[in-house]
Formats: sequence, C-alpha cells, structure tokens
Amino acid sequence: MAVARRAQEIEPFRVMAILARARELQAQGRDIIHMEVGEPDFPTPAPIIQAGMAALQAGHTHYTPALGLPALRQAIAGYYLERHGVEVDPGRLCVTPGASGALLLAMAALFDPGEEVLLADPGYPCNRHFARLVEARGVGVPVGPETGYQLSAELVSRHWGPRTRGVLVANPGNPTGTLVPDAELRAIHALVRDKGGWLIVDEIYHELVYEGAPPSAAGLGEDVLVLNSFSKYWLMTGWRLGWLLAPPALMPALDRLAQNVFLAAPTVSQHAALAALDPATRPLLEARKDELRRRRDWLGAALARLGFDVPLVPQGAFYLYAGIDRFGMDAEALAEKLLLEAGVAITPGNDFGAHQGRRHVRFAYTTALARIQEAVARLENCLG
Amino acid sequence: MAVARRAQEIEPFRVMAILARARELQAQGRDIIHMEVGEPDFPTPAPIIQAGMAALQAGHTHYTPALGLPALRQAIAGYYLERHGVEVDPGRLCVTPGASGALLLAMAALFDPGEEVLLADPGYPCNRHFARLVEARGVGVPVGPETGYQLSAELVSRHWGPRTRGVLVANPGNPTGTLVPDAELRAIHALVRDKGGWLIVDEIYHELVYEGAPPSAAGLGEDVLVLNSFSKYWLMTGWRLGWLLAPPALMPALDRLAQNVFLAAPTVSQHAALAALDPATRPLLEARKDELRRRRDWLGAALARLGFDVPLVPQGAFYLYAGIDRFGMDAEALAEKLLLEAGVAITPGNDFGAHQGRRHVRFAYTTALARIQEAVARLENCLG
Repeated sequence: MAVARRAQEIEPFRVMAILARARELQAQGRDIIHMEVGEPDFPTPAPIIQAGMAALQAGHTHYTPALGLPALRQAIAGYYLERHGVEVDPGRLCVTPGASGALLLAMAALFDPGEEVLLADPGYPCNRHFARLVEARGVGVPVGPETGYQLSAELVSRHWGPRTRGVLVANPGNPTGTLVPDAELRAIHALVRDKGGWLIVDEIYHELVYEGAPPSAAGLGEDVLVLNSFSKYWLMTGWRLGWLLAPPALMPALDRLAQNVFLAAPTVSQHAALAALDPATRPLLEARKDELRRRRDWLGAALARLGFDVPLVPQGAFYLYAGIDRFGMDAEALAEKLLLEAGVAITPGNDFGAHQGRRHVRFAYTTALARIQEAVARLENCLG
Repeated sequence: MAVARRAQEIEPFRVMAILARARELQAQGRDIIHMEVGEPDFPTPAPIIQAGMAALQAGHTHYTPALGLPALRQAIAGYYLERHGVEVDPGRLCVTPGASGALLLAMAALFDPGEEVLLADPGYPCNRHFARLVEARGVGVPVGPETGYQLSAELVSRHWGPRTRGVLVANPGNPTGTLVPDAELRAIHALVRDKGGWLIVDEIYHELVYEGAPPSAAGLGEDVLVLNSFSKYWLMTGWRLGWLLAPPALMPALDRLAQNVFLAAPTVSQHAALAALDPATRPLLEARKDELRRRRDWLGAALARLGFDVPLVPQGAFYLYAGIDRFGMDAEALAEKLLLEAGVAITPGNDFGAHQGRRHVRFAYTTALARIQEAVARLENCLG
C-alpha cells in the first residue's frame, strides 16, 4: 500500500532528532538548555487566561462561524487602525487555527498544482510544505546578509518564472529575525502586482520588532494577503489562533475553504483573544518583549565573542542565525556536539532551506537570560 | 489575479444560504427553529469545562507534541480497550484539531493527485473536499436504502477503478445516521486489502448509536485508519479536537505532516479531553444520548405521519434523512418554503451529494424535544 509522494517528500525537522536526543539525555539526568524551541517560554498573561476561563464558565463551547467570532474580527480590525493607522474591513478577516490555518487557506485558495510561490531561503520550512500539500511548489530564493536575508524586488524579478504566481515574505523572518525595508516591500508589491501575482506577507513576528514600529503590509493595499498569529507576541502558542487578512474578492472562497478544512478556530481561544487585544493587556506584553530584547542584545554580543558569525543584528523575532565556518563543522554535527558535550540544544540551519544551511545554526532566545548565560559559558568551554 | 481551481470548485454548503436567510428573519423578529445544524445543542458537560479551566489555571498554554499529549494518547488507547476490547498502541494515535484535522492528515498522507477514494453518496461533503484539497478525488458511489445508505463490498468492487486507492466509510453516516453491518465492513476491508488500497473509517458518530454497541473498525486490523472526534458524543464541538488511529508504518509521515500542517491540537482542549474520557463523565454523556434517542423516535414517527419518506430508522448520529417526493418540490425549494412559511430551518439533500439529493432533506434533531414538536406542528400546518 503506497503512501502519497508528498508525505514522503515533506522533510522532518532535523531539530526533532536533536530534541529526541535531548530528552533521552534529560531522562539520564543531564541538564539541557533549550535554545532550539520556536516558542516563547513565558506563560500566557493572566488577563488572557482569565478571559479563557470566563468563556468556559459562560459555556462558550459551540462552533463559531467559520470566519471567526464577529467581535474578534472587529477587534482585529481595531488593532490595525490603532497600531498601524490602517482601516480594515472586518469582512476581510478570517480567524484561523494558528497562522498554520491561515497559510493553509492562502495556499489552497491561490495556487494550482505546479504553480510556484517564491520565498526566502533560509526561511520557515512549513511555508514550503504548505505549498507542497496542495501540490503547488515553494521555490526558495537564496538570500544573504546583503539583502538582510530577505527577498528584494530585484531578486523577485530575477527569479520570477513562467509558473510563478506569488511571493511569500515573512517580515521579520524566521530564522534570521530580519526585516524587509518598507520601501523594498513596496517595490516587491508593485512588481508582484504588475506580474498579476499574489503577495502574501507573514507578520507573525511583526509585533516583536525591537527598534521602531515598521508599518504593516495591511497598508499596502487590499490586494495583499497578510497573516498573523496570537502565538508569539500575545504568548498564546497552545491556543492555536491566528488570522488572515485577504482581498475582498477572496473572502467567499476562503469562507468555503474554512468551512470545509477546519470548520472554525477554537472557540475558547477566540474569546480569550479579545482580552489579548485589550489595550490593558499591552503593558504585560511589552514587558515580555523588553525581556526578549535584553536577551537578544546579550546573546548576540556573546555569540560574536565566541566566533559565531552574526553579520546583522536581527530587528525582531527571537532568533539569532549564526554562521559557523569558524568551527570547521557541518551544522548538524555542531548541533549534535553542542548537545552532547555542552548540553545546549540548538537548530541546524539546514532545517530552514538548502542555501548555506549547513554553514549556519539558529539560536532561539526563548529561555531565561540566566540560562542563556549558562549556555554561553558551556559553549565557550566546549568550543574554546 | 487568478484564484486556484480548487477554491472555485469546492462548493458552498447550501445550508449556509438557508442559515443566512434564517438570521435575517430572526433579525426581523421571526422565531426560527433550527434543525439544520450538525452540532448538539447541549453544552459541554461540567467536568470537562472544569478540567479546561484547571488546565488554564495551571498554565498549560504551550504547544504539545505534534501527535498530542502522551497522557491523552494513552487515554484514547485505554478507551479502545475498555469500550471495544481492542488493544491499541498509543504510538498509533495522532490527536488532531477536530476530525477535520484527522481527515486532512489521512488524505494528505495517502493520496497522490488524481488518485481516487470511494465514498457513499449521500455523505458528508467535506470528505470529498479534503480529497480535492490535495488534488485527489472523492468519488461518490450512489447508495440507497437497500444497502442502508452505505457502501457494500459489492458496491466497492463494482466501482473500484484503475485510479482507486482507497475507501472512506462513515459509520454511522451523515446525513443518514445508518450503520454498515459488521460483516459487510469486514468484507469491504478484505476487498480493499486485496486491492492494495486503504480503508478509512470515520467513527465520529460511533458512540451515538442508540441500539447495541457496534464494534470499532479499530479491531479490523492495524492497516485500517480510524478517525474520531470529541465533538459529537463528548459534546466538545468548539474545542476542535479529534484523533486519527493509523497503521504503524504511517506514523512518521503523519507526525511530519502534523508538525507542518497544524503544529499541534489546542492544548487546553487536550487536557479537558482527559476528563471527557474519564469513566465518571460517562453517565452525563449517556443521559444526553438518551435524550437524543427520544428525539429521534418522536421525530421519526412524526415525519412519517407528515408524508416524509424515512425508509430506515437511523441507528445513530442525530439526523433523519427524509425523502420528499410526496411534496412535489425540489429540496432547496422545500427548504426555503419551510423556512419562510414555517420558520423551520433544515438542510437540502443536495448538500450531501449528487445522488437524489434534490429528492431529500436532512432534519437534525439538535434542538429540544419541545421545539421539535413545535416544528412538526408548523410543518403540518404548512404542508398539510
């Protein structure tokens, strides 16, 4: 009995093997410092938890409409107005089970089999796999520090082929945490529009930009698809909630797809998210963001001192993508060595694409600063 | 800018138009009795709510492993042993965001583009659409009362074509609530195995069988995929939680797909589901099931009296699929008439397939018996 080709071709995350080894070591009593996990260590803030509990107590346990609770769609529209000065019709919003649900809807709605969507390599691997799921193809465009590890209009123009139908930009990106400059994103948008293609902008780390407040792609025009998530800035990973902002003409198709593919996002999470967007919750979230920035600053300097190559200070997210040429080892070998000898778990760069992935690793600063400092001491000992 | 063909081809649920009309009428002050909704009206039982609240209070807000909380996978395995006498390795279980997530994983793992999976027509339309999503094809096999509105080995054999790679059986089915006899399911399994194909059995209504306790397809063999949901019997629709039991050889692919496609099912829901499976919760669920049976019995008799054709008393689920030839109208026209003139919302049969759908409607008995009785009085008035 044959398995589908896509199921064979969708690659495992290499970090999962690291994680499994880490768990074995922990079971043997070893102390492992986790810097591989793409999830904030902070718990969900109390007001959001309280709102979730209140929703349960009030019996909000039935399905919501497929596109989401009207009050939440309204609140997200309010968020765009308040934070970005962009007026968004709530009718253009689809509340989804995580940004994963948003990506799945977008790929399913836009791309036919064999059609291609350009994305940065290195980049978040699931983006490519969502395209594969619907038999379209994510085409990695090699990017480096010269474009801030991001696509540029020039790169998009150069790689646009006969089957290209769209571009996916993560702003800021994972694993690099770097931003596309606003003017560049506008140029990409203009180019994609000229080509008659689709621009999808992933802003799940957009609120975790430490300097300045870049504009949201929601302001570029109604033809852009923007996805976001309550997971990262709002600290709601396990709640599985995100959203997709889409062109008005796509909404009937997205509604039909949502009805069929996931029926609706989790109801309790949607009620809790109303508290997440409440301005009263913001100071708690900003405090967490400040802590993440402190970690970034400390870790970035420390890694440079150890000989890791971090040519750009990432503006956002909670990752440092570091070149490892100085250590003369492949990324997977280095990750394994650091796990076994230093008890520090990190992600090999080849989890994020084919372009020089084996010459990079990703450090997630999703653990307390004291633990990060302990990790660096161990790395120094191990690599020194 | 073109939309993907699948997004155009995935049909809307016709009942959504009915629902939109119903909401308009309600906004005008009309009293509408909802018998179109495939969701139990009961709230989630208190012990499950309490477990959800306790999980939130305990800070269980991070991701779980992609295949689910180990304790929940263990509890589901325990459920198969206790209820069906079938030993199931918890390693064969994937906890999913609703049965929707399970269907998506199964289709993605099993079927290449253009490959076909046989399913009963009438049947739950999403099943066909999940196949479409991954560019495979759900092929409806016309079924009628002579096979209990279900596939038979004879039908599967007759419709098995060069591109057929599997069979999906919903047991009991939606919209008909009827079961495949155990011997017939075994014959289908043997046939599919001989053909080198996959058998998927959807058991989301399996605990809502009112007479007897049919065996689970989990006992047929490790090569069968069985999916289930906490939505219907366990009354957890808005929690978005289900599971997929799969052959051991598929688990690595399912794990990879789950990691990429949804990361994990909602964490709070998974903790709450532990309480759902607790034997102490069962009497509450059985009381709800008894109430559903009373509704079925009353409504079935009443519809027959009104001239609807319900040749088989459905053994399970919460639907009555009724022939409407006696009224000389198409299903959509009849549904509209009943909504406008009687204030009763039902689902036209063509939401469930092409085979005689326009000659049938579906009544969901997901509202209190007193309301069902009121609905029947109105129908009598309107159709009499």
